[in-house]
Amino acid sequence: MATRRQATRLLSQCKFRPQLASRRSISTFFSSTSSSSTFAPWARYAGLAAFGLLASVPLTYTMAVTEPLSMDSLSLAERDQQQKKNEGISETSPMRLRMEKFIKEQQEHIVKALEEVDGTKFRRDEWQRKEGGGGITCCLQDGKVFEKAGVGVSVVYGTLPKPAILKMSANHKNIAPDGEVPESLEFFAAGLSLIVHPKNPMAPTVHLNYRYFETAKPDGTSGAWWFGGGSDLTPSYLFDEDAIQFHRDLKEVCDKHNKDYYSKFKKWCDEYFYNKHRGEARGIGGIFFDDLDETVSDKENTFAFIQDSLKSFIPTYVPIVLKRKDMPFTEAEKEWQQIRRGKYVEFNLVHDRGTSFGLNTPGARVESILMSMPLTASWRYMHEPEPGSREARLVDVLQNPKEWV
Amino acid sequence: MATRRQATRLLSQCKFRPQLASRRSISTFFSSTSSSSTFAPWARYAGLAAFGLLASVPLTYTMAVTEPLSMDSLSLAERDQQQKKNEGISETSPMRLRMEKFIKEQQEHIVKALEEVDGTKFRRDEWQRKEGGGGITCCLQDGKVFEKAGVGVSVVYGTLPKPAILKMSANHKNIAPDGEVPESLEFFAAGLSLIVHPKNPMAPTVHLNYRYFETAKPDGTSGAWWFGGGSDLTPSYLFDEDAIQFHRDLKEVCDKHNKDYYSKFKKWCDEYFYNKHRGEARGIGGIFFDDLDETVSDKENTFAFIQDSLKSFIPTYVPIVLKRKDMPFTEAEKEWQQIRRGKYVEFNLVHDRGTSFGLNTPGARVESILMSMPLTASWRYMHEPEPGSREARLVDVLQNPKEWV
Repeated sequence: MATRRQATRLLSQCKFRPQLASRRSISTFFSSTSSSSTFAPWARYAGLAAFGLLASVPLTYTMAVTEPLSMDSLSLAERDQQQKKNEGISETSPMRLRMEKFIKEQQEHIVKALEEVDGTKFRRDEWQRKEGGGGITCCLQDGKVFEKAGVGVSVVYGTLPKPAILKMSANHKNIAPDGEVPESLEFFAAGLSLIVHPKNPMAPTVHLNYRYFETAKPDGTSGAWWFGGGSDLTPSYLFDEDAIQFHRDLKEVCDKHNKDYYSKFKKWCDEYFYNKHRGEARGIGGIFFDDLDETVSDKENTFAFIQDSLKSFIPTYVPIVLKRKDMPFTEAEKEWQQIRRGKYVEFNLVHDRGTSFGLNTPGARVESILMSMPLTASWRYMHEPEPGSREARLVDVLQNPKEWV
Repeated sequence: MATRRQATRLLSQCKFRPQLASRRSISTFFSSTSSSSTFAPWARYAGLAAFGLLASVPLTYTMAVTEPLSMDSLSLAERDQQQKKNEGISETSPMRLRMEKFIKEQQEHIVKALEEVDGTKFRRDEWQRKEGGGGITCCLQDGKVFEKAGVGVSVVYGTLPKPAILKMSANHKNIAPDGEVPESLEFFAAGLSLIVHPKNPMAPTVHLNYRYFETAKPDGTSGAWWFGGGSDLTPSYLFDEDAIQFHRDLKEVCDKHNKDYYSKFKKWCDEYFYNKHRGEARGIGGIFFDDLDETVSDKENTFAFIQDSLKSFIPTYVPIVLKRKDMPFTEAEKEWQQIRRGKYVEFNLVHDRGTSFGLNTPGARVESILMSMPLTASWRYMHEPEPGSREARLVDVLQNPKEWV
């Protein structure tokens, strides 16, 4: 199917259909020369006309079902698919495949660990995006411990149009290293996102996301790449020891890789997860970063940092939940949690760039994006916590983010 | 205080302070000549230097406390304030004052009518925006019939910067009738907004908003003006007779003023209150319109239409609520209402231009803007109504808006 789709795609793009099939004879897998990194596909197809092979629709169909095709006539997704099938995934595989494998393993691991805490199974949905890519969404709702827990993986292959490339090239010179911005570029994006909203108002909500982005050069080799991600905690009732533990664990992972990471990413998190219209942070923060590329560290080291960060989630969060999940609480405390949930919804729908991008992407799986919503939330006009109360202290900390470690 | 503020404002703007006081002697109230409509304040101040009056800071202070000032040295807000004080508001007053008076009267009327239905009093907050303007927010929450009902009036005086003027001039030629876009322009905006979320899932949520916008010419006279507004109904359970009545009443008001209004504004409503990411309308619609200016009808006739529309709200909505407020319902039906509330929140926070504009306006009163949120809402992952159920029929109608009259 993939090759047939690809043939149709090429056909629809190509102004010189008769020469299309000739590509089979001249291409080499991941051929990378300086001249081929200039993206001028029609010029290249025109050059191929000299080979004079005749292609018609039936011939193209034949081509589509004949294996193997030389790899550079395939899309990035198709090449990766073939490589997975033929060679499997190892430490020498492209980062795309290694990141995909890693986050899928971690998804299973996290789901299992949360299922053990809750005693309820996650629902698991595997889905395809017809524009390219897909994912696995795991969701548990109305459990014994968790009101809602969602762990999602998505892997997207697509094409960036010129305006998007231009925008990204401001931060990532490698997208157009020779200064020439191509009309379009294939890209790959993969990430794991999770949100856990516990039932007990004493147990904090947590969010985590780690992602990898890569553009392909016109010749199919890796162009620009970067990692992003982070994790942050949103309590309704603040236990300083939880906040300290959460930040200490993150700092430990950061410090292992770069002594500057924690303070930089902690500040970034406070600034990003900020409900500007309320003048308060969404929660007590954590770390947040984006654009970790070759200007910061090399790919292997950054991947190692991402791996350690993601692996530290369960050992950090589960002990906090176990400590809080059975604490007694009043109806008023539950109500306060619901009001805080409302502000969580506000951040996600008004300010979160990821949610906004997702909801505005045609063909996006809305249920996977909005899995981040709490099961229930509340809005009370002019609700103000009592001065001196625990609720008031939380708001004070949200208005004036603290250094926890 | 107003005149002192104004003097300070002028001082801070004016490059030719010594000539400032001379304006007292040459200005006339609402002087409107074609030459004065060109906004080049510094050139005018420079020209006034010929009068040779000497002003220093102490003199300016003296000016600030000396009454009366000639009117055109005052801001639009200050002029309106003086006119209200000196002459009251009549049918010959500027539309700004008449619209403000009308929506404040209607707010009282609507609040009283809803209080009668609920048996609970609204809380009333009068507030000032330090950037100019203010309003009255009336809110009832957790009542006997209404989960939340908010009726707000806001009256804003401010200054449009050049980019905003440029944008508006695309739709409203009168903002810059001679083609010269000024650096800034004073504006006035007044509106009444309301949202009512009843407790009973059989009783529909309703939203309404009517507003007036005006820019001042540099000489203080009215520049561009337009009205906007509408009203729409959002049931969790669809009673066709309610939808028909709601639309029939709106059509009746529209038809009285212009036979084209209803069909045009009904379509506009279906298009505007659309949760694009869900592929469904927020509710069963009503009417929505904007930019009703001199190209559509004259100011008096449009104001009459706005008045009739707003006045028709209570006689339309209250009978629907009275019919539904005591109907029996199941827990599952309440749950469905909560899920629909979640989608209401999504529309308001993700798509509604008014909410977005409000939340991004520095100094805006966030509690007045977010009074539109329901008291409680719910998000269930992958919740789908049973095929053939009442819930499924609602979704079907939301996906395929109907003609009700």
